[in-house]
Amino acid sequence: MGLPLLAVACCALLAFVARPHCAEAAKARHFKWEISNIFWSPDCEEKVVIGINGQFPGPTIRARAGDTIHVELKNALHTEGVVIHWHGIRQIGTPWADGTAAISQCAINPEETFTYRFVVDKPGTYFYHGHYGMQRAAGLYGSLIVDVAEGEEEPFKYDGELNLLLSDWYHESIHTQMVMLSSKPFRWIGEPQSLLINGRGQYNCSMAAAHTPGATQCPATAVNRQCAPVVLPVLPNKTYRLRLASTTSLASLNLAIGNHKLTVVEADGNYVDPFAVDDIDLYSGDSYSVLLTTDQDPSSNYWVTVGVRGRLPKTPPALAVLNYRPNAASKLPSLAPPVTPAWDDYAHSKAFTYRIRARAGTPPPPATADRRIELLNTQNKMDGGIKWSINNASMVLPATPYLGSLKLGLNKSGLAAPAPAPDTFSHGYDLRSPPANPNTTAGPNVYALAHGATVDVVLQNANALAANVSEVHPWHLHGHDFWVLGYGEGGYRGDAADEARLNLRDPPLRNTVVIFPYGWTKIRFVADNPGVWAFHCHIEPHLHMGMGVVFAEAVDRVGEVPKEGMMCGATTSALINGGHL
Amino acid sequence: MGLPLLAVACCALLAFVARPHCAEAAKARHFKWEISNIFWSPDCEEKVVIGINGQFPGPTIRARAGDTIHVELKNALHTEGVVIHWHGIRQIGTPWADGTAAISQCAINPEETFTYRFVVDKPGTYFYHGHYGMQRAAGLYGSLIVDVAEGEEEPFKYDGELNLLLSDWYHESIHTQMVMLSSKPFRWIGEPQSLLINGRGQYNCSMAAAHTPGATQCPATAVNRQCAPVVLPVLPNKTYRLRLASTTSLASLNLAIGNHKLTVVEADGNYVDPFAVDDIDLYSGDSYSVLLTTDQDPSSNYWVTVGVRGRLPKTPPALAVLNYRPNAASKLPSLAPPVTPAWDDYAHSKAFTYRIRARAGTPPPPATADRRIELLNTQNKMDGGIKWSINNASMVLPATPYLGSLKLGLNKSGLAAPAPAPDTFSHGYDLRSPPANPNTTAGPNVYALAHGATVDVVLQNANALAANVSEVHPWHLHGHDFWVLGYGEGGYRGDAADEARLNLRDPPLRNTVVIFPYGWTKIRFVADNPGVWAFHCHIEPHLHMGMGVVFAEAVDRVGEVPKEGMMCGATTSALINGGHL
Repeated sequence: MGLPLLAVACCALLAFVARPHCAEAAKARHFKWEISNIFWSPDCEEKVVIGINGQFPGPTIRARAGDTIHVELKNALHTEGVVIHWHGIRQIGTPWADGTAAISQCAINPEETFTYRFVVDKPGTYFYHGHYGMQRAAGLYGSLIVDVAEGEEEPFKYDGELNLLLSDWYHESIHTQMVMLSSKPFRWIGEPQSLLINGRGQYNCSMAAAHTPGATQCPATAVNRQCAPVVLPVLPNKTYRLRLASTTSLASLNLAIGNHKLTVVEADGNYVDPFAVDDIDLYSGDSYSVLLTTDQDPSSNYWVTVGVRGRLPKTPPALAVLNYRPNAASKLPSLAPPVTPAWDDYAHSKAFTYRIRARAGTPPPPATADRRIELLNTQNKMDGGIKWSINNASMVLPATPYLGSLKLGLNKSGLAAPAPAPDTFSHGYDLRSPPANPNTTAGPNVYALAHGATVDVVLQNANALAANVSEVHPWHLHGHDFWVLGYGEGGYRGDAADEARLNLRDPPLRNTVVIFPYGWTKIRFVADNPGVWAFHCHIEPHLHMGMGVVFAEAVDRVGEVPKEGMMCGATTSALINGGHL
Repeated sequence: MGLPLLAVACCALLAFVARPHCAEAAKARHFKWEISNIFWSPDCEEKVVIGINGQFPGPTIRARAGDTIHVELKNALHTEGVVIHWHGIRQIGTPWADGTAAISQCAINPEETFTYRFVVDKPGTYFYHGHYGMQRAAGLYGSLIVDVAEGEEEPFKYDGELNLLLSDWYHESIHTQMVMLSSKPFRWIGEPQSLLINGRGQYNCSMAAAHTPGATQCPATAVNRQCAPVVLPVLPNKTYRLRLASTTSLASLNLAIGNHKLTVVEADGNYVDPFAVDDIDLYSGDSYSVLLTTDQDPSSNYWVTVGVRGRLPKTPPALAVLNYRPNAASKLPSLAPPVTPAWDDYAHSKAFTYRIRARAGTPPPPATADRRIELLNTQNKMDGGIKWSINNASMVLPATPYLGSLKLGLNKSGLAAPAPAPDTFSHGYDLRSPPANPNTTAGPNVYALAHGATVDVVLQNANALAANVSEVHPWHLHGHDFWVLGYGEGGYRGDAADEARLNLRDPPLRNTVVIFPYGWTKIRFVADNPGVWAFHCHIEPHLHMGMGVVFAEAVDRVGEVPKEGMMCGATTSALINGGHL
């Protein structure tokens, strides 16, 4: 990974001492990665995971705002394609580098190398992950952290930094999981076996068994460093920035630290108006920075608990140790681990979510929108299986990536153009009951967006197939941040009462937003980044079951697309026949 | 699969009654297949297998000599490419349809469709299987049976026909198996859990427990038809043609039928001089037809046993029932299942193998060869792992299929041409000991063959990495049948004594041939079929570990290659830049 990383390491060490003076000439950061299946023991049970350069999670990328990242990715899997999505990076001008198979590029074939090149234009806490099949759930992810540009300052002060990439982990392989989810009759994959912190967890034992009825104490010293307990070393009376991100397959999470408050300062790479909380929700796809001051009894260590929200938690919480130095890291905290809120305490979740507002200085949204797209989220049946669908179409992806086929205008020369997806649904739909007609169909779910248009999207939740069930869904938009204008209960009507609920003054900018059970969420963004962008539920099995749409945004304005990413399907034929990307 | 199959079914029913009169207009047989991972219970344990049209094994293709087979193959796997090799079909004029990933074509990407089109020019017992990664071992295989052309007769008589496709089955997924075999340190995958007959077996129980010490009796009635015991219905005093083929991943097999002799009449789609045996060896890649006369006590049924040869068998034998009608199929045979020969009774194996001679009328080999290629088979170490290598190079396949890259002459425009592989090895090599220097390197192992040349290949066996171990390897050649000239013990010297061992009078034509421990095997073929052809050990883990070479045969004479099979790697770039296949 060469010299740039050394430079980064140097800057990271000096981060809060001398950042503005840290000499750093290189603005292009080069990484050489090889993707392969490896044996690993994320929770002390050995399984096959997708590793990068032989490790799990993948290496952390650290850069400064404005830098260009080059990742030369070799696929060393035996029979599987691969792509990597840079979650939260808007890919301004580089939509081909967004890393969504069948949308922004062809999956990279085994033995092939593809180079991602993109600018990290904005400081913040990001991550990257596979975006083909369910490869994220196989462990293909890592952190991407962008510091402020040389000479600039974060708008808050801290003495040190800790990074926590949160995930969940299934013992069943993703191949089996994908077969289950596509089975007729449908087979649900169940809850993950473990929660992981920085790729490490403990299965079938607890680090705090004394406080956990029925649990076995994990071995005092880790037998395997791959599943060693995570220790966060801190000094007393300092302020730390905790970078938190969730790349879970299924679980919504909550993180709490015994006796410590957390001050939220960043969400999805955007500064927010600081506010203090006892615990913090993280849905899959979310990232946050929180400040923590080590103002508690320094003779003790403290538990960090990560627990499940939104689903009856069959997965035990993950624990880490906040280690007040010079206490031994192995010194067990005297207090019990904090208990995260009850899984179904939605009032708590909403209270947290509604408190997130943009920091002063964040650009406000345009006052009005040019278009409103209303997306009804339903669970449905199809051909004997179960799907999620949007406005009654369950998303299926094509063999030829949209970015290539739309840019080449292949629909004009034989390839079927994706039918326009509907901007709304019947407002007579009974959101509180299982679908009266549960059958759905497959669809491309493509929305063409005009360049520069201000687009509102209303995500409308509903009842699933079972009575009295409505799930939380975190929706993630590629290529953009959006303003979160507001949330409501029941059906969105767009009337004065609904409009009154919206925040047009200081709505936070995000790339991921949640819809609560039986509720709606309204977002706004400006279609100023030509490309083809996925917008989907970030829960891996839900996306696999069709819960997403595609925004084809001013594709005629997309600049040159490297043909290396379009060597599949109809794009290749078109290129061979003289087409130009 | 449409009308042609109906016609085939009709002809099959009438096969020995009225074959010459069975009206069959269609000579092009069209099949539409979809490949996907499915749940299946080959040995009553449910696993994920690769199925075709939702079934395992794949559908049997039945055709007549001279017919053209069209298989429109859709890859419905989620993230994996796929190809299918038509084992034993020479693909005269259609080398692009041979179905070897990275050699004859690009793997077909998910959601893509590729159409194989080829002539089955010769009657015989064949099969098809995956040829990418270890997908054959995941269950991607089926039978391909070619009857004589309309109006022609087989050179032997029979009253009915039974088809037995033999395989072995691992409970560990091929993804895990591939990681194991590529691990450093190396991890061996062990022996298969079960042997399967027509895709069905019994794990952890025996159908003949009364005769099997320590075994549990399998349920009398199959709980799951996917692993129901195979019953072969016959009438007394008839002669049946048993079509046998082995597509095992690892196991060498022997088949015996209680109280019945078998008369061998066909091997690998070539007629042989008939001879009677009590049992028959089948190495992976072999196919045979044997005649069986139902001349035993008709009040009884009889066991068919399939046991392991060549390795200490940790896998219990598979059993089927030869059901003399009108006895009930469920009537257990009164005799114990026949015991197949001891795994290490090589004298028995050799005696059988050496008896195979061509039927009169089979074309004889040219009297002399233009070139002799000697291939030393060794087990080696590489970068902390274990490999098999040929003349000290372990085969690795490229990202761009050879058929495309060589035909386009890409080596002249940037793509590295494969270095010529050596035609021989040091004859001072100590075949009886582990390699003195066990280290090997990776190589393309490509041999360019001149058009029309008569080529001899000597396959030389040696000691593996462990002392006193030399394994059996069945080598399979694509694109050709070859004459099996002879076998010898120890090192081949090519002297008068070795030459005296050869059979130039009536050597059998085969596509698969075995090398015995510490021995050599010599074959001859004429390079009259332009294409790029794999030649490799048919043991799936051995091939994965590099045990193979590639014959690039008069590629300048290859006719048009459909570009649909070359949409990957450097071939695509070349096509985009104006290259023509």
